[in-house]
Amino acid sequence: MPSAATITFHSNSPPAASAVLAYLNGQYLPRSAATIPVEDRGFIFGDGVYEVWRVVNGRLFETDRHLSRLAFGLGELRIAAPDIVRRQVLDEVAERLLAESGLTVGEATLYVEITRGVAPRTHQFPPAGTAPTVFATVNRFVPPNDVRARGASAITAPDVRWLRCDIKTIQLLPNVMAKQAAAERGAIEAIMIRDGMVTEGSHANVVGVLNGEIRTHPLDNLILPGITRAIVLEIAQTLSIPVREEAFAEGDIARLDECFLAGTTSDVMPIVRVNDRPIGSGTPGPITMRLFNGFRAHLDASCSAVPAPA
Amino acid sequence: MPSAATITFHSNSPPAASAVLAYLNGQYLPRSAATIPVEDRGFIFGDGVYEVWRVVNGRLFETDRHLSRLAFGLGELRIAAPDIVRRQVLDEVAERLLAESGLTVGEATLYVEITRGVAPRTHQFPPAGTAPTVFATVNRFVPPNDVRARGASAITAPDVRWLRCDIKTIQLLPNVMAKQAAAERGAIEAIMIRDGMVTEGSHANVVGVLNGEIRTHPLDNLILPGITRAIVLEIAQTLSIPVREEAFAEGDIARLDECFLAGTTSDVMPIVRVNDRPIGSGTPGPITMRLFNGFRAHLDASCSAVPAPA
Repeated sequence: MPSAATITFHSNSPPAASAVLAYLNGQYLPRSAATIPVEDRGFIFGDGVYEVWRVVNGRLFETDRHLSRLAFGLGELRIAAPDIVRRQVLDEVAERLLAESGLTVGEATLYVEITRGVAPRTHQFPPAGTAPTVFATVNRFVPPNDVRARGASAITAPDVRWLRCDIKTIQLLPNVMAKQAAAERGAIEAIMIRDGMVTEGSHANVVGVLNGEIRTHPLDNLILPGITRAIVLEIAQTLSIPVREEAFAEGDIARLDECFLAGTTSDVMPIVRVNDRPIGSGTPGPITMRLFNGFRAHLDASCSAVPAPA
Repeated sequence: MPSAATITFHSNSPPAASAVLAYLNGQYLPRSAATIPVEDRGFIFGDGVYEVWRVVNGRLFETDRHLSRLAFGLGELRIAAPDIVRRQVLDEVAERLLAESGLTVGEATLYVEITRGVAPRTHQFPPAGTAPTVFATVNRFVPPNDVRARGASAITAPDVRWLRCDIKTIQLLPNVMAKQAAAERGAIEAIMIRDGMVTEGSHANVVGVLNGEIRTHPLDNLILPGITRAIVLEIAQTLSIPVREEAFAEGDIARLDECFLAGTTSDVMPIVRVNDRPIGSGTPGPITMRLFNGFRAHLDASCSAVPAPA
């Protein structure tokens, strides 16, 4: 069972804590020294949003799409957008975090979380003017290429999440429980099922190939509008692979020709077994690997085409 | 509109921050100085549970029922129960927090939150042995008797929460949004509607009186098993008031004879208007007030009957 590989795949492999820098409300400090007040609404209510960027050689991938999704979430939650939602500020913060954490060469991730700030506990919003909490940090990232080469396993799990999965909030307990259930079965992801239909995974979108068509849940309140998902669907169109954004049923899983995850830390990850039964040939499928290769080329081109920060 | 009263009702009216003590992982310190690492899973994933106790003259109300619910939640989330889930430890922590915060006379609340602890961010559980985070604090509480005397307003709102509302987790963002919507309309609570049926409020259970029967959503995965709810239903039985634990429809709200909230900081709170339309006579109903009086007598008797901590 690929349990050791699973762990490698899902950790963001943080370097020694002392080496990693955090940004917290305008201050830079070692992450191990970064603390928030107990009355932060992130800690009390899960009242916040987050984003994770892929970083290659110090350059953020798809900065604007992630910022746009972050701004959408803040708007839905009615949290006043802090400065970090401006591209220039984000770039400055990212540059310093990456540089001082020794992550300007190779792959990394940037994590940004914004909560509704610190206030005495009461469900309704705190007084106007309460400053949101802004936390950012970086981690070394090792693409799970060994797992990709042989394909990964997934399980299915009931989708018990709330009905605003389109907002990237820190309400992640159901995702935590689903991911743990997967890990305990040597799988890297839980494919979530709501009302008999496949929605998405605990931390990535799920895409199937069925009867020669790419099938994935449409964008609505039940899934996160994944940025990797969007790019992969764009690439499929350039490759003239038919795409249908229509959910497929749990019962269709056994009939899939191919299946893969699309996500910021998954890239395109072939799923070759679901609940211990093979998908298609039981090896990474040709459409999946064409899409992975197209995605990886786009990732590398994007991160080398963007001028380095001055 | 009762907006000022609403604010009074919902704040836990914290004294000056410097006066209030917090308990954090075995340490006592001013709440304003209590901080948690940014990598606490409460802050990153909303991965934790909490409880709120009513306190009268330094004595906790229904200690064991709340501890039992807390232990249930920890079990469902598979967080190892820390010492504070033992009654003796909880009593010791509460006693010191209340004494040093000047809250041994009159009414107060005790808040306890337990998260899965501090670890590098990855959805699945952290390594075995990762210590849960334990935070507790106290607040002055002023029962909302003025609002109760005239009755309160509520709104209805879609219930978009996850499907494990029976666990008292810190996944409270939908509750935050619903409560805020209520507050902006001068109401104290949002009555949540799922699939056309009344589930509960954002921070209290909802009970109706319909055709002479007490009606409230049954205990299942869609509502919190409220301790005030349970006591009120017990009192109703002693008063020979028929109780039917069966959900009523959104469309039934207009036909209710009476409506009230049941919760730790609501006690029994008459709801006399929903979406600006009167319930019954538009004043606190007789069954509601009998139940409130019975509940209040039980609360006072419980807290005076228990021997004070040595």
